[in-house]
Amino acid sequence: MVYEATTSAPVNIACIKYWGKRDTKLILPTNSSLSVTLDQDHLRSTTTSRVDASFEEGDKLWLNGKEDVIKDGGRLWVCIKEMRAWRKELEEKDSSLPPLSSWPLRIASYNNFPTAAGLASSASGLACLVASLSKLYELPQTPSQLSLIARQGSGSACRSLFGGFVAWREGSDPSGNDSLAEEVAPRDHWPEMHALICVVSDAKKGTSSTSGMQRTVETSSLLKNRLEVVPERMEAISQAIKSKDFEQFAKITMIDSNSFHAVCLDTSPPIFYLNDVSRAIIALVEELNRASGKNIAAYTFDAGPNAVIYALEENMPVIIGAVKKYFPTTEEFEDPFKTQTNDLPEGFDVRVVREGGWEKGAVKGLIHTRVGDGPRTLGKEESLLNEQGVPKTLA
Amino acid sequence: MVYEATTSAPVNIACIKYWGKRDTKLILPTNSSLSVTLDQDHLRSTTTSRVDASFEEGDKLWLNGKEDVIKDGGRLWVCIKEMRAWRKELEEKDSSLPPLSSWPLRIASYNNFPTAAGLASSASGLACLVASLSKLYELPQTPSQLSLIARQGSGSACRSLFGGFVAWREGSDPSGNDSLAEEVAPRDHWPEMHALICVVSDAKKGTSSTSGMQRTVETSSLLKNRLEVVPERMEAISQAIKSKDFEQFAKITMIDSNSFHAVCLDTSPPIFYLNDVSRAIIALVEELNRASGKNIAAYTFDAGPNAVIYALEENMPVIIGAVKKYFPTTEEFEDPFKTQTNDLPEGFDVRVVREGGWEKGAVKGLIHTRVGDGPRTLGKEESLLNEQGVPKTLA
Repeated sequence: MVYEATTSAPVNIACIKYWGKRDTKLILPTNSSLSVTLDQDHLRSTTTSRVDASFEEGDKLWLNGKEDVIKDGGRLWVCIKEMRAWRKELEEKDSSLPPLSSWPLRIASYNNFPTAAGLASSASGLACLVASLSKLYELPQTPSQLSLIARQGSGSACRSLFGGFVAWREGSDPSGNDSLAEEVAPRDHWPEMHALICVVSDAKKGTSSTSGMQRTVETSSLLKNRLEVVPERMEAISQAIKSKDFEQFAKITMIDSNSFHAVCLDTSPPIFYLNDVSRAIIALVEELNRASGKNIAAYTFDAGPNAVIYALEENMPVIIGAVKKYFPTTEEFEDPFKTQTNDLPEGFDVRVVREGGWEKGAVKGLIHTRVGDGPRTLGKEESLLNEQGVPKTLA
Repeated sequence: MVYEATTSAPVNIACIKYWGKRDTKLILPTNSSLSVTLDQDHLRSTTTSRVDASFEEGDKLWLNGKEDVIKDGGRLWVCIKEMRAWRKELEEKDSSLPPLSSWPLRIASYNNFPTAAGLASSASGLACLVASLSKLYELPQTPSQLSLIARQGSGSACRSLFGGFVAWREGSDPSGNDSLAEEVAPRDHWPEMHALICVVSDAKKGTSSTSGMQRTVETSSLLKNRLEVVPERMEAISQAIKSKDFEQFAKITMIDSNSFHAVCLDTSPPIFYLNDVSRAIIALVEELNRASGKNIAAYTFDAGPNAVIYALEENMPVIIGAVKKYFPTTEEFEDPFKTQTNDLPEGFDVRVVREGGWEKGAVKGLIHTRVGDGPRTLGKEESLLNEQGVPKTLA
């Protein structure tokens, strides 16, 4: 009997940003956040977990084929420990269950997007680990309950346990038990929500989000005000999603991205994630919206120079056309939706972008995706482990 | 009898930034600000004003040899009108005075620094106009009283009526009569305060400060908090100046520059003045300070990408050495102080700057100057006007 589960989990990109912890150990945030889950058809982490009484040398984990140390007390270790504890509870209640919680684990995880793409792989990766162990251990916990564990692995991972539009409630309990993710709306509510990821080159490695956000908490005087305005934004964007009001959704998304980068700049020493290419993409989107007479696109930037542009499917032709025109990419762009590009809207002021556009490769590549579903359970044939419990890619 | 006065006035660069008006007509700011006046030996505006009963076609003004229209109700017009009114008061009290207030004006103004240098020429220019008219009209008003008029020409011009370290008090009276400049400390109190201006190229013309600051007032939610913290900063930096505490002066100057650019970013649509080269200069200064174990340099940025680095004279060798090393300029650097450059401090982490430094011309040129005095009265031989009351450069 092989006890194994393989799952995949999605990437999520926040519209209301998570920046700052009130408890660094439990990963409790200073504010609620909200994200769109992206389609696993395009971007995903896949994880296989197996337990076997005969495995030696304790638990082992491989990330993209490379063995990773599960450091005692570290974030991976905490997630595994908590999931095992829930399994143990089940076993204690029902002695007929096999004692999986006491057997060593073999875990292999793989991201189908390059780390160099600058997408936060820790969110999908940690969510996938938790989803996979939950399946393996046949746990009764809901996705929201599982999100409590994923959160401790990597804050924003908690939001990748749901599809659609997802809120991470900051909570107030010091234990962290109310700091969890929940669905605001499923993907089917607004499937027209598409996203274009612009992968921007940056010569310099930026400040890690873990250290950066704590420096903001310690030194920014403007953060206090950001924390005061986020609750209204959470409420307003949830309403915009429920009523499928893209205009409003876009407005809040852009304002909150700018507010997040503003408090980064207000940090000592200041933190910069946006570079000149990021600024140029912002200018392009602002001008597309102005020339269109309404918000047809919304940019948002995480802790790096990459832009994510949210737009309704119907407006992607003009957006992709504009981005391709001014930012010729080095990587071939394979659009899974085969979007036909449109010309710039009438009245578009070309002065906002560089004469002749940017040099090739300022934007390395584009990824066109859309709102997606939550973690998926995959079949045996998709297992990442071979018979010996070692990643197939290594065998 | 020729009634004429020639004066020069200095540039000032704020450490606590002016950003936002509570009254756009009277130019009343949303917060107090504080600046260092720079030495007129290096950067100055010069203005000659003359009145003559025989001048025809009313008042005329030339800026850098080009005639400028004095628009009715415009800012130049307001300054001239107010100065003339003060002169008229004098004449009404003393009928032996020649009726200069009723005679047409000829005004010529000249900046010894190129507009392309990106330095705010309106501050020194408007201060110089007011100083020149005050001299011509032999007004008894103090520099603080004159600053009320210069303020209405260009907000920060009020600070150029003093040398040394200057505060512009926001005031509270709706008339604006308490929104004036005053000296915090004269130049002689801390003559070791030097400044290095790094003139940074920018492909794109940024948002004008006049329109930008009002967009911030209307749309930034973080501005409210900035306005709450500025009073403490004003107090703290004034203390630092009085006690010649460069460490503290630098800390507050950098924090306030970053806070100002943060509220620009928090504006809708966002305003960016810092570009990648500005960011690189910030990184260089932060690393110089870290490696030195104390703040030896303080960057500050106005509404553009140019950096002004404040430092004590004794630390300029290492700062100029570092800037020249990583930012080779296109323009020859003529240092009036003949500063010998020093190597980087021990422990300087070269990873913070680009491998091999930036391409030549990323920083176009450097200007080394220091704290300076207030407006100067110049001799007849420095008049910008010929006998006919036309700029000599045109004759």
